[in-house]
Parts: sequence; C-alpha cells; structure tokens
Amino acid sequence: MSKTSPDLVMVGSIGLDTIETPFERREGTLGGSASYGCAAAAFFCSVGMVGVVGDDFPDGFVRQYERLGIDLQGLQRVRGRTFRWSGVYEKDMNNRRTLSTELNVFADFRPDLPAPYRVAPFLFLGNIAPELQLHVLAQADGARFVAADTMDLWINTTREALMEVIAAVDLLTLNDSEARLLAGENNLIRAARKILGWGPEYVVIKKGEHGAMLFAESGCSVIPAFPLEEVRDPTGAGDAFAGGLMGVLAAGRAANAATIRRALAYGSVVASFGVEAFSLERLIAVSRQDIEGRFRAFRDLVAWAW
Amino acid sequence: MSKTSPDLVMVGSIGLDTIETPFERREGTLGGSASYGCAAAAFFCSVGMVGVVGDDFPDGFVRQYERLGIDLQGLQRVRGRTFRWSGVYEKDMNNRRTLSTELNVFADFRPDLPAPYRVAPFLFLGNIAPELQLHVLAQADGARFVAADTMDLWINTTREALMEVIAAVDLLTLNDSEARLLAGENNLIRAARKILGWGPEYVVIKKGEHGAMLFAESGCSVIPAFPLEEVRDPTGAGDAFAGGLMGVLAAGRAANAATIRRALAYGSVVASFGVEAFSLERLIAVSRQDIEGRFRAFRDLVAWAW
Repeated sequence: MSKTSPDLVMVGSIGLDTIETPFERREGTLGGSASYGCAAAAFFCSVGMVGVVGDDFPDGFVRQYERLGIDLQGLQRVRGRTFRWSGVYEKDMNNRRTLSTELNVFADFRPDLPAPYRVAPFLFLGNIAPELQLHVLAQADGARFVAADTMDLWINTTREALMEVIAAVDLLTLNDSEARLLAGENNLIRAARKILGWGPEYVVIKKGEHGAMLFAESGCSVIPAFPLEEVRDPTGAGDAFAGGLMGVLAAGRAANAATIRRALAYGSVVASFGVEAFSLERLIAVSRQDIEGRFRAFRDLVAWAW
Repeated sequence: MSKTSPDLVMVGSIGLDTIETPFERREGTLGGSASYGCAAAAFFCSVGMVGVVGDDFPDGFVRQYERLGIDLQGLQRVRGRTFRWSGVYEKDMNNRRTLSTELNVFADFRPDLPAPYRVAPFLFLGNIAPELQLHVLAQADGARFVAADTMDLWINTTREALMEVIAAVDLLTLNDSEARLLAGENNLIRAARKILGWGPEYVVIKKGEHGAMLFAESGCSVIPAFPLEEVRDPTGAGDAFAGGLMGVLAAGRAANAATIRRALAYGSVVASFGVEAFSLERLIAVSRQDIEGRFRAFRDLVAWAW
C-alpha cells in the first residue's frame, strides 16, 4: 500500500447490503457510500478511503478495493460486526424502502486521517453524521477543495452541526427532496440559492434518473442522467456520481464552474455503469476506455443542433 | 382572417378551465390543448386552429387568439356549453387531480378542415379521441409531416384506433407514464423502441419539469426543462411544448433529427414562459425576442464544457 498522499480522500460508510429488486435479491453485498464513491473516483485519480469495517468483513471485498486501485491506509478494521443495510426497490426502480439498518461498528466510528491523507488537496465528506464530517475537516490541513453530501436524517436531527459543515465546504451535494427539506423551499432554484447563501460556492442537486443540477452564484446548469435500458440495482448511484465528479476534479487539480460541469458529466457516466449490476460488480469490470466511450455517447445525447 | 393555407394546422380541445394551485384559484380561464399549442406555435409560423366552442365562449378569448395571430378558419362555434375542465395542483405543482370534466359541445365534435387547411404541410393531432384524429388525418391531403399526442384515457379505452393513429404519424408525443402504459414497459428506452416499431419515425417522451427525450431509430436525445423560479400554473405546458416544437419545424419546413432537436429546445423555452402565469396570459405578453433571449440562456444551461 502506498504511503504517498492521494489526490482525493473520501470518507463515508462501508456496509454489507441486502437488496431486493423486482427481479432479484442479494444478501451481504459490498456497499456503502465510501465503497461506491471511491470505486468511481479511482477511474480518474488516486483516492484514499476513510471508513470502518468489522471483523466479519470478507477479505474478498478488501481485494475488490485493491483491484480498483483504492488506497486503504484510512480503512479501519475493528472488532464487531460491519454496518448493514437492507432495502427493497419498487417496480419502477425509482423508489426504495429501507427494511433495516444496523449501525454496528459504524456507531462508534471516529474517522482519523492517516498523515498522508491530511495533505490531500481534494476531500469528500460522504453522508455521515455532520459532527464526524467536521471532525474529519479539522484534520484535513491540506484540503483545497472540500465537498460534502448529506441526507434527510441529519437535516432533521442535527441541523446545527450540518449548518457548520455547509458553511465550511466549497460544494454541497444532496438530492432534490433533501434540498427542499433543508431550505424549506419547494422550488429547487430558490432552495439552491438559499443554500448558496449559507456558504458553499457550488450546490449540486441530484435527481436520480432525471439527472442533476449545478448551482453557483453565476447561474445554473442542468445535466441529464445517461438513459439506460437495463437498471439492475440503483443502490449507490448518487455516491458513484459524486465519486466520479470528485475524481475528475482531483485529477484536473482545478475546481471551477467549467471543470465542475465536465466532471458532472463523467459522474453521470460512471454512475450509469454502476447501476447496471449489483454492488461494485460493473465498476470493477469496466475500463477507463469504456468510460470514455460512454462519455462520448453522452456528449452526443445532449449535443443540440443550435 | 386570411384564406391562405397556414404552415401548420393544430387540432385539439378548447376549454374553460377552473384551476386551483396552492397559491391561487382561477375560474373559467381559457385553456385546452389547441389553445396552448396554437399560442406557442404562433411565435414561429402561421398556425390554424381546429376546435369547437359553445355559445358561452367569451368574445374576449377569441380576441386573445387573434392577438396571438392564430388563424381561426377552423374554429367551430356551435350551440351549447363550451368544454370545461377543473383540477387542483398539489403543493409541489407536479401532481394534479382532475376535479371535473364536462365534455359539452366537445362530445359531438366532428373536426372538419377548411379547404386551406387540407393542404397545410404540417399537422398536429392534439390529444382528442383517436377516431377524430383519424378523421382529421383523412382530410389532410397536403400534410407532409404529422405529429400526434395522446393520453392514458385513449390507451385504456380505444387502443385499436390509437394504434392506427400511431402507425400513420411521423412523430408521437406522450408523457412518461403514458409511454410506459402504452408499451407495457417500465424502462423508457425499451418503451420508446417498442413504439417506434409500430410506425412513427420519432417518439418524444415528455417528463414535465424533468424535460423530454427524443427517440429515433438512430438513437436518443435528452433535453431538460428550463428551470424556473416561479411556476404559477403548469396547465398546458405539454401542449405549449408541442406547439413550440411543431411551430419551429413548420417554420423551417424540414423535420429531421437535427431540426427536431433544435425545435424541442424552443418548445421547452415556450412552455417555460407559459407556466409563469395562468392560461395564455404570459404567452400573450412575451415577444419573439423574449423567446430568443431565453433560448440563448437555455443553450448556456446545457452547454457543457467538453
């Protein structure tokens, strides 16, 4: 394992998922926001994963991370059971219900950054408790561009700490219903403008199969999702999207409206591969060349004849 | 009124709408698919309206059509009450419930094309009974490009006649849930491919605030909706979208994948103006210059930094 500093550090959950779709059921697959995010980012840059697993975490999953080229200096292995989540997707694959969540070792997770991670220039604070996001942020002396993700749970329960995170980051990602909830605004443009007023330079609102919107002081951009004929498991799509976005930004070493737009398109493409199979299966199987091929197809898809 | 042949003929409903949004309630406003469609198309080409109204139809509404430059040779005025619809929008403005529908004079509507309309090169068969769409089509000797819209009611009740319409048109527009229902396919790409197999060269799937998708044998394109800060009344957005699309195609006198893509962008822009006010109010107030201004903004919005 390299002791050099990665381009990007991503902190988040690592879990064993049990997933049911209208077509299939899988038990104990590799999941979690850090898994999907790092797998996506690793196509573009060197990425270090910060997360925790229990002693029941299969060695085979660690080897999957390694095969993806993810730096594991920040992966904590502790006594106890790994975080588990189970959910079921409805017929249209857009709505899902959580059946159970077992925090297990994730309950006492206290993410500490290995020394090389503290000087990494790009940092992604995945969807964990805002207090932990702040704890990581305080250690990230070298971070020049910080993005964070969040969810309804934190908006509803730990809003004050979340507001501190929002004030401190350069970019916030969240989905459309979470943006509405956070801002108390139904209209997404007004919601985004309100959030921009709280600190971040950029807000990315994720809309699942309907794509995403980028907001900045200077205006807004919209990007569609790559239309797929076959979606087998949408789990982790938003995380892979964020991972692709951050990976491309970190590889380019510059984050501005233009590079973020381009990076969002890559995020969309990587996420589209991810949902074609369960867990990280498809992300492990595709090459950077496959990504570039679909990126070109994506460009044609949104290239209007002006 | 000119007795020359318009570039485009649009047949559809004309109604008096009672609309309730979370913010406002309006009674007896001018509505119907032909109203919105023709108002949108009239920005770009000469358009003739085919529809029916009762003797209670306010003269002021006829003057609104005239102010928009809509050709009214095909507007039938008969004894009885005008078609009425009432509906209520939920808080997020995306879902609506129909409260009541009174067909009135629309029940016996038998659309007959005035002679100049029969030679018009572009024809749009708005969302009326498939039998009536076929009746119009049979009269349209000069139509070189025909598009049709439909809805769940006809898919569920008069499928056979609808399939005849689909086999006969060049382009079919319908919304995402209708496409799924018609094709019996949840995945939109597979649904569109199935519909393409039934005859039309193009299928446009409308997704409301999430934009639209264009499908052809050669592939697919996606176009977002223009993001709006203020939506006051979404009624007729899909009709205005189709009207803008057909108006631009008719003005250019050529329908192919490239011109349709461009026309869809204009459709999206015109529809975005339409929903900023009730009825045709905003479409009457804006100029072609306003349309072009927002078209440029729209182009920036989807112009990715490749």
